[in-house]
Amino acid sequence: MNILILGGGGVVGQKLAQALAKRGTLRGQEISKITLADIMDPTPVEAPFPVETATCDIADPASVEACIGADTHVIYLLAAIVSAHAEEDFDLGYKINMTGTINVLERARALGTKPVVVFTSSLAVFGGEVPDPITDHTFLNPQTSYGTQKAIGELLLTDYSRKGFIDGRGFRLPTISVRPGKPNRAASSFMSSILREPLNGQEAICPVDDDFLHYYLSPRKCVENLIKGAELAEDDLGMNRNMMMPGRIWSVRQLIDAMTAVAGPEPAKLIRFEAQPDIQRIVKGWRYDQAPEKSLKLGLTADDSFEDNIRYYLEDDKPAS
Amino acid sequence: MNILILGGGGVVGQKLAQALAKRGTLRGQEISKITLADIMDPTPVEAPFPVETATCDIADPASVEACIGADTHVIYLLAAIVSAHAEEDFDLGYKINMTGTINVLERARALGTKPVVVFTSSLAVFGGEVPDPITDHTFLNPQTSYGTQKAIGELLLTDYSRKGFIDGRGFRLPTISVRPGKPNRAASSFMSSILREPLNGQEAICPVDDDFLHYYLSPRKCVENLIKGAELAEDDLGMNRNMMMPGRIWSVRQLIDAMTAVAGPEPAKLIRFEAQPDIQRIVKGWRYDQAPEKSLKLGLTADDSFEDNIRYYLEDDKPAS
Repeated sequence: MNILILGGGGVVGQKLAQALAKRGTLRGQEISKITLADIMDPTPVEAPFPVETATCDIADPASVEACIGADTHVIYLLAAIVSAHAEEDFDLGYKINMTGTINVLERARALGTKPVVVFTSSLAVFGGEVPDPITDHTFLNPQTSYGTQKAIGELLLTDYSRKGFIDGRGFRLPTISVRPGKPNRAASSFMSSILREPLNGQEAICPVDDDFLHYYLSPRKCVENLIKGAELAEDDLGMNRNMMMPGRIWSVRQLIDAMTAVAGPEPAKLIRFEAQPDIQRIVKGWRYDQAPEKSLKLGLTADDSFEDNIRYYLEDDKPAS
Repeated sequence: MNILILGGGGVVGQKLAQALAKRGTLRGQEISKITLADIMDPTPVEAPFPVETATCDIADPASVEACIGADTHVIYLLAAIVSAHAEEDFDLGYKINMTGTINVLERARALGTKPVVVFTSSLAVFGGEVPDPITDHTFLNPQTSYGTQKAIGELLLTDYSRKGFIDGRGFRLPTISVRPGKPNRAASSFMSSILREPLNGQEAICPVDDDFLHYYLSPRKCVENLIKGAELAEDDLGMNRNMMMPGRIWSVRQLIDAMTAVAGPEPAKLIRFEAQPDIQRIVKGWRYDQAPEKSLKLGLTADDSFEDNIRYYLEDDKPAS
């Protein structure tokens, strides 16, 4: 079982590699190798099997060709230009998120080996005038270029799977929180930073009101679901290879209260509310009221409470002070 | 008002040009020129203003650049590789239906003139496990490569419009019947040929049973709707630029009965039923139970009865014998 993680330098890619290393198997087989590939050479992870790292620009077909071989059994396609960045740089967003996805699928098709492709999509594929709640049969109506690019990736994943070129499965990730590391250019970046920075003793800015509702999942659960996602039987996936990954709806106030319940009253005092219309315009277009029936039925799970999300951050990610 | 019809050599493109020539205006302005462009130089139409013809390969950005100028106000993007052909030739389908659409949108974006782009999509974007009826908010779940390519075109149309690069409006055409001319490689080809050939005194093969239900529109109504479609106010289009074009559900038996009602009992005797599993597999994946609320609300219309479709064929298209 030879696994490639495209976007292996990112938060989810790194945690996924660590979880796979700990597990040692995928789809009932011993893992023989993991390759972490990213636009910059990723940090390797410790594992009882070889872990290679590679630079890969998915927008470049030759670079993709070098990364994906006939012996690549499972490809995690996590690499992406994030939402606010894709909104700002139209060309780059399409180049990585659309053309890059096409390059990966075309390479898999050319090999003829039908690898499992696990694709991460986003709740940004939903938006506009569609009624709540979002179900497995809700119209894809993205209101950002990022969401559009992810929706296109979903359609291609299903078509390439239907044709037998790949065995694809796509998961629309809830917003991952608490993400470790630094803020990024995702419009959702604050949904972790208002917790992470205070838990690390630093100030953070919240650009929306505290009644802002959104749909969340912890990194730990996300990785568990991505592993389950690769292991689902192809026959159970149905005529659309994409589904929501389960999450839970919380308000900003609930996130902060959960932090206070777990870590005491001090961190919350480090949050400053400061309206940012650019960020609000993007995130208020996202749909949070989701009914992820298909993925729940297939055994994927959400966090039990946001207190868990806080605890996972403290256990897994908080830098030693 | 300078209009470009990409796919101007096809049945719909030719009829659209004829209707525009008769009308003389679009969006409240005198038409100054129509350009009919297609992969092979199209037949010109008679008009009280200049009609140019051009060869254009939409898969080639340079060819698209030559066709679309800063003075092009309205672009009808009708050119496509049809369903069964796109299913058979995976690369060609994506090259024309996806990359070709991207080339047109990118050219419009580069010009910075925000042309009106009228895009024809298809009910082939629907399929799979979604519940009936298909509404404006039903999940796009194509089960063919053609449907996938059209769904991608829809998503791009909305995103390029949202960004202000174009003023796009997309219409999912019902199956057009009775189409004049010869059978083509669309899986739906029989839905006209079982009527057209008999009305012309020739035999025809019906590859499905006579209880096969589908969603139809006459070419005359289709063209009326495409003209209305170009004239809709941008503000009325909402957050998704694509909608169903209204049609009506009929069984094969009803089509044949309508033909008999209008043209007498002889034509129906020329139809031979002969099951074709390849065609059945494609067309049975299409969804016909549609509730086109948005387009009806905006003033687009369906035929009143299939007898009308038969009469339109006899009036507009039947070759002189």
